[in-house]
Amino acid sequence: MNDESGAMNARADSGDSSFIVHHSSFILHPSSFIVALAGGVGGAKLAYGLYRLLGERLAVVVNTGDDCEHWGLTVCPDLDTVMYNLAGINNPEFGWGLAGETQRALAMMQRYGGESWFGLGDGDLATHLLRTQRLRAGLNLTGVMFELRTALGITADLLPMSDQPVRTVVHTDEGVLPFQRYFVQRRCQPRLLGLEFDGMEGAQPSPQVLAALDQASAVVLCPSNPYLSLDPILLLPGLAQRLRAFAGPVVAVSPIVGGQAIKGPAAKIMAELGVEASALAVAKHIAGRIRLDGFVLDTVDAGLADAVAALGITPLVTDTIMRDAASKERLARDVLGLAEKIKPF
Amino acid sequence: MNDESGAMNARADSGDSSFIVHHSSFILHPSSFIVALAGGVGGAKLAYGLYRLLGERLAVVVNTGDDCEHWGLTVCPDLDTVMYNLAGINNPEFGWGLAGETQRALAMMQRYGGESWFGLGDGDLATHLLRTQRLRAGLNLTGVMFELRTALGITADLLPMSDQPVRTVVHTDEGVLPFQRYFVQRRCQPRLLGLEFDGMEGAQPSPQVLAALDQASAVVLCPSNPYLSLDPILLLPGLAQRLRAFAGPVVAVSPIVGGQAIKGPAAKIMAELGVEASALAVAKHIAGRIRLDGFVLDTVDAGLADAVAALGITPLVTDTIMRDAASKERLARDVLGLAEKIKPF
Repeated sequence: MNDESGAMNARADSGDSSFIVHHSSFILHPSSFIVALAGGVGGAKLAYGLYRLLGERLAVVVNTGDDCEHWGLTVCPDLDTVMYNLAGINNPEFGWGLAGETQRALAMMQRYGGESWFGLGDGDLATHLLRTQRLRAGLNLTGVMFELRTALGITADLLPMSDQPVRTVVHTDEGVLPFQRYFVQRRCQPRLLGLEFDGMEGAQPSPQVLAALDQASAVVLCPSNPYLSLDPILLLPGLAQRLRAFAGPVVAVSPIVGGQAIKGPAAKIMAELGVEASALAVAKHIAGRIRLDGFVLDTVDAGLADAVAALGITPLVTDTIMRDAASKERLARDVLGLAEKIKPF
Repeated sequence: MNDESGAMNARADSGDSSFIVHHSSFILHPSSFIVALAGGVGGAKLAYGLYRLLGERLAVVVNTGDDCEHWGLTVCPDLDTVMYNLAGINNPEFGWGLAGETQRALAMMQRYGGESWFGLGDGDLATHLLRTQRLRAGLNLTGVMFELRTALGITADLLPMSDQPVRTVVHTDEGVLPFQRYFVQRRCQPRLLGLEFDGMEGAQPSPQVLAALDQASAVVLCPSNPYLSLDPILLLPGLAQRLRAFAGPVVAVSPIVGGQAIKGPAAKIMAELGVEASALAVAKHIAGRIRLDGFVLDTVDAGLADAVAALGITPLVTDTIMRDAASKERLARDVLGLAEKIKPF
């Protein structure tokens, strides 16, 4: 790992200092290509940081388990969150949706007594309309997302994990709920008993995902919910095997910081599944799915670095809170630095 | 005709005074029921006036030749214009679309390089989304419009002329254009050579349209474009025959005033078809399709009243410009007064 900038992380003042990063001035080799796996908001933030560093030398493989049909349209929340973030047009406050979005269609839908629990924005509707129209015309989801992200000027690949529909279904103490019913309508309030991924058996990674992995120097698992966002990707038949066989470094960033999720229900879900909500548990979970070489912990979790190392995973302790473009890019640099330290590329 | 209000129309100072209306204080019999035939903006205005007088004792039969598929949605411009007008939520300036409408979806569609020549509004999209979803679920258009207009609190029947798709196709000096391409994208600029109504042979009036005519006391043809809006209705197999056999009075309001269309391309089209753009020509055109008993002319066309009468059609001269709710209601009252004068009901 290059370590020339040397600006000591101001928050890295607790715990074992041996894994603590001096912010990396990692310089990417011109031939290197990175595959990032991402879900929604947290994943999109790091994907944006990576995109600023890598441009077209990045492919983001995105969870499609959250996808749903709403108002007769095919909605892909995680893909769109990543796309809007990469295009720099996302709502900076929410992390998802478009900046300056309005909801007049929703208001009119409410007036009609139509379904109004899932608030698609007016500008956002264009994405779903165009996608649905192109899917009906016979394109697969990969082809549609290529058109959309290209039109928005995004040069990185934005790849659905699969072109076959996979739909996350949540088993709760209030019954079985389609993902967005659980996530949006019920705001993750029902107690989660288990997850099911409808269509997973018949699904496979798209040729584009496999091709991206073939040329990748490293794989980065973004700080996304390990159960809701990463598992659908990691459990996709053929993909976990492909990742285990991947020759380059595989590194992940913890979405759990100090026992809490930065955003979303990860900590709540882990507690409900009887798993301690900690960065260490996330590392263990991922390492149970694929080969994990490196793991990025927030400075507040520096005390967990030894335990991560004991799993045979190289820890890196740094500030993982992504407040702005600069901190997203900085974390991306640290993550790539860790990957290169593990296996130079 | 009752004529108790006696307020002489201030504009009715030219031409033969024998047909000039003293604004009618026509009082509707509780059992009477009116069927109005309408296209878009002009038709919607009179439909609104009739609705204020009649409430649930009104059925508006609307042209569907303008309907199209756009952004993967089934769009019914005339039906929606009438619906928004009856609900009092239309854009008062344009006559079509929703009041206070925004076009964020359109702006995003433009950003994607998608079709942006047909500017569906954000609130308006909810109508098309819901309609398309319900049509896909198996409802017919009549059933869908019943749901929509009921949700908006409209008590009058709002009836598509047919549940079978009829699509107006415009033959022009620039080639054959689907209606909205001609009307919206090309702003009626190409020279019209002729009209075709795709699907007309296989279409028929809905059972609800025929049932409305069965119970109707009178039929009112709203001031809509005779070629683009009324002809699709009047040429619908089985409907012109049914109207000819209709026992009650059939009256129409001229959309041409002083040789000009109040709105839209009616006058331009008539010129291109080699027909004099005049209220008289409109009366002749309609009388060539169905039995026409009465015809309402604007005061500026008072000079045409004798010629209308010579066709065996009872003329009525009044102020036909509908500026506001009061003038729409007043014209509706005059029109019903004319019908009742012809054949009391």
